[in-house]
Amino acid sequence: MRQLKVFESISVDGYFADSNGEIDWAHAGRDDAEFANWVGGNANSGGELLFGRKTYQMMEAFWPTPMAAEQMPEVAKGMNERRKYVASRTIIPAWSNTHLLQGELSKAVRELKDSNGPDIVVLGSGTVVAQLIDAGLVDSYQFVIIPVALGSGRRLFPKDCKLRLVDSRVFRCGNVALTYAA
Amino acid sequence: MRQLKVFESISVDGYFADSNGEIDWAHAGRDDAEFANWVGGNANSGGELLFGRKTYQMMEAFWPTPMAAEQMPEVAKGMNERRKYVASRTIIPAWSNTHLLQGELSKAVRELKDSNGPDIVVLGSGTVVAQLIDAGLVDSYQFVIIPVALGSGRRLFPKDCKLRLVDSRVFRCGNVALTYAA
Repeated sequence: MRQLKVFESISVDGYFADSNGEIDWAHAGRDDAEFANWVGGNANSGGELLFGRKTYQMMEAFWPTPMAAEQMPEVAKGMNERRKYVASRTIIPAWSNTHLLQGELSKAVRELKDSNGPDIVVLGSGTVVAQLIDAGLVDSYQFVIIPVALGSGRRLFPKDCKLRLVDSRVFRCGNVALTYAA
Repeated sequence: MRQLKVFESISVDGYFADSNGEIDWAHAGRDDAEFANWVGGNANSGGELLFGRKTYQMMEAFWPTPMAAEQMPEVAKGMNERRKYVASRTIIPAWSNTHLLQGELSKAVRELKDSNGPDIVVLGSGTVVAQLIDAGLVDSYQFVIIPVALGSGRRLFPKDCKLRLVDSRVFRCGNVALTYAA
């Protein structure tokens, strides 16, 4: 069975987005070459991507553009070429290699996990992540803890979960990547 | 001027206490000798301690007891011997070396910081910490990130704050200690 991995930038006070849904505070490490390389490596790891509607629309509006290709060529290439899924009843995806996930989310994701293919990575997409946690479908979490507190915002976990730390990495910019098994 | 340090166990989703105010989920590393030694070393670092009423009453009910002396002798000794302050208008402290902080909290803490002595460490005491953050009186934070998500609970930061990562340590039990300068 394929692994479902959740990748999130979170504040030290546990939010993945601020109270307006923005994530611009998470760009702390943009000028840290080591962190940027690590993110680039992740983006080209070959896994498939799964998004909720809001995160998908932010991504679709950025990664296919010439600006993305110039600013972050490696990440942009990976994001555009990878197979992507978006859970939505309302949009028609225009981004390359994107497929709609239709019907009940947990059923659709369970079928995806049971099919052949590489690991599936969820980026952002808090609403989707909460549903997948509730359905017990998340296998691991990679959190990049950004050195900022937000005071308020959107949180990921709809219920309590015991986790197991399996990897950690500290970057010069102050970001800390912690990987947990569910 | 003395440094004011905040020390908190927090869940990966950013809570320092669950929605009932309990912190029993934070005892994950109790059986990890390396982590226990590190906590013991902190408890005997010589700093003074500052508490809000609720945390103080939990501590006062445990650390002076024979059970504490048997379970965690080093930590108990440190906790009992150190100079302690409690911010409360209602209680009369019975724990050894404890002094009441009276009047307006930020004024009292500013005076403490301006007086001579070792660093001051706040443990738990979320209400007090929020007031000290608001007043700009916190110099650094040490968070022990426990490998658990709570889903709901009590949060520390009343507003957004940029932090600077200055130290990190990963323990076998999966706890991760991250130290930030304010």
